[in-house]
Amino acid sequence: MRGVAILGSTGSIGKSALRVLERHPDRFRVVALTARTNANLLREQIARFRPQYSGLVTAAEGAPQGCTVGEHCLLEAATHPGVDIVLNAVVGAAGTAATLAALRCGKRVALANKETLVVAGHLAMRLAREYGGEIVPVDSEHSAILQCIVGQPRSSIAKLVLTASGGPFRDWSVDRLRRATPEDALRHPTWDMGRKITVDSATLANKGLEVIEAHYLFDVPYDAIEVVVHPQSIVHSLVEFVDGSVLAQLGVPSMELPILFALTFPERLEDFAMPRLDLIRSSPLTFEAVRLDDFPALQLGLAAGRRGGAAPAVFNAANEVAVARFLDGTLSFPGIPMAIESALEALGDLPGESLEDVMAADAEARAHVRGMPAC
Amino acid sequence: MRGVAILGSTGSIGKSALRVLERHPDRFRVVALTARTNANLLREQIARFRPQYSGLVTAAEGAPQGCTVGEHCLLEAATHPGVDIVLNAVVGAAGTAATLAALRCGKRVALANKETLVVAGHLAMRLAREYGGEIVPVDSEHSAILQCIVGQPRSSIAKLVLTASGGPFRDWSVDRLRRATPEDALRHPTWDMGRKITVDSATLANKGLEVIEAHYLFDVPYDAIEVVVHPQSIVHSLVEFVDGSVLAQLGVPSMELPILFALTFPERLEDFAMPRLDLIRSSPLTFEAVRLDDFPALQLGLAAGRRGGAAPAVFNAANEVAVARFLDGTLSFPGIPMAIESALEALGDLPGESLEDVMAADAEARAHVRGMPAC
Repeated sequence: MRGVAILGSTGSIGKSALRVLERHPDRFRVVALTARTNANLLREQIARFRPQYSGLVTAAEGAPQGCTVGEHCLLEAATHPGVDIVLNAVVGAAGTAATLAALRCGKRVALANKETLVVAGHLAMRLAREYGGEIVPVDSEHSAILQCIVGQPRSSIAKLVLTASGGPFRDWSVDRLRRATPEDALRHPTWDMGRKITVDSATLANKGLEVIEAHYLFDVPYDAIEVVVHPQSIVHSLVEFVDGSVLAQLGVPSMELPILFALTFPERLEDFAMPRLDLIRSSPLTFEAVRLDDFPALQLGLAAGRRGGAAPAVFNAANEVAVARFLDGTLSFPGIPMAIESALEALGDLPGESLEDVMAADAEARAHVRGMPAC
Repeated sequence: MRGVAILGSTGSIGKSALRVLERHPDRFRVVALTARTNANLLREQIARFRPQYSGLVTAAEGAPQGCTVGEHCLLEAATHPGVDIVLNAVVGAAGTAATLAALRCGKRVALANKETLVVAGHLAMRLAREYGGEIVPVDSEHSAILQCIVGQPRSSIAKLVLTASGGPFRDWSVDRLRRATPEDALRHPTWDMGRKITVDSATLANKGLEVIEAHYLFDVPYDAIEVVVHPQSIVHSLVEFVDGSVLAQLGVPSMELPILFALTFPERLEDFAMPRLDLIRSSPLTFEAVRLDDFPALQLGLAAGRRGGAAPAVFNAANEVAVARFLDGTLSFPGIPMAIESALEALGDLPGESLEDVMAADAEARAHVRGMPAC
């Protein structure tokens, strides 16, 4: 019986995780739940799962009884002594400190908060090694890669191939992209996800973040990470090995499977409630090149990853604010990568040795993009 | 440095294997080579690889000097003390005894001769366990499955999905199938293979043999083995796990990769001469249901596997003779499954406990199909 904390329990990933955990009460116990603002849903979850600890990040009317209020609840939940696995589903760089704290306690972090690895990848991986913790990815792409390399040494990997659905704008003309609205961007063809990641998926900034995440998680150089568009979202990613063989992980687009695998890795748990892939109904599976010039956020992410230092943190922070401004209507869709590029030009050489360094760069990048004129 | 014997070195698999071995002289040494009839090519191979042992099954003029002539050369090569790995690429049930002999010596058998497992599956698996030998498949489908389950316990497997190209007659009408000629059948769309297996691929008898092979190799019940048509032959097979996740192995249709993997398993060896998969150029990948009624050999094989005893041996022997008769022009294409069905009806309940049992059933089935009128 392993104790689980869910940071971000009222979001899309958090709700999926609770559905998974509810099916396996003999293996997992929900020990801690935290939410950002949704006090009502959190109260229902507390009534149902009776965690030892609960927290609400943003002080709000109607916080559930006994619930810790304030940002520090993330760290308390992540380091709670009854917790073996921290599912970090916080959105954005705000989740970084909790990941690092959990790793320092030697816990497993089931990581849906990819920003942790973008902002502080080498710190996180070093802490994991030093304190005996581990990061197991929840992102479907990285879960796919992990599943493909179970039992195979790092030296056998030649190349990672991350698949991208291409998002709702995959076949839109550049001209039409200029007029894309938040409603358009939030209409994802294959995945039902939170708002921020859905927009990231439309710009391909998400894939930029994921390339950086993969670089740190699997210790693979950027030159050996490719992105290919796969509109059906059935093949979640692939690994090419040194002998030329390729393994792929497939499944229906549901986050429940990577969540379960992150909890049980390296084992698999029988779960016949999990939606099953019908290969014939999923046919054809297609693959095409990324339109790199029309969706520049991916290349910007890759360049930031290669640059190192605080550049990935700047990329991420600039993107977060730019997405918020796009959703607010004060930035156009092509304005998102323009804002990222501008922030990287101004701040991409900031140092990124410590968590303080990257959080300072993060703050500067946010201010930079907030201060940009509408475009 | 591991010593390798190749049984069937002048056939399609044997030649591919020598190309692979030639690229890795620091890891493997060719210790023994045997051929059935091609004395000239065998002589060239002997000159090039200088094996300690060589053999020619069929006495022929011009046998290379120092070469053992006669069927017993297969057993001598398979049990040669300098040999660690026996690549068994003999065509048909004739390869069975050599596999069993190698396993009794505790050697690894890299098995391209799927008939071994069809004819004597439980004998072979028992010998492997008892004497510490092992069978590693060379068939691309079974190699794919093995690659997908490396490092995962048997209990995590829910289902095996074998892919079938569908062969050259995939979209032929039943009426047109009646008039299919050997030339038509030998024109395989994606794989360049020997004649017998190419015809088996056209009738889907090959997939019947492979289902039985998979049953024994991976200890999976027949109900948990599916076949799906995948005309591009890029996805070589898939495994569904108990949590609903699916892994697949992909690669260009070349036997060099499964041969190399059978030699190096569970490791992988760097080999940049191996043809690489281009996912985008391979797109789309399609999957469709097998036309079971129009290609009855698959269901006959599955039924023979389920029936057990000598039925799989009868299925295989009847098919071997029927294919030879089809190539001779004394049996039509639909006559192949009819001959198999007739043999199974007459002889399917014969006992199959010992190698003697199954070889007796094999001989009876051959006589049965040889004696059938042209149809």
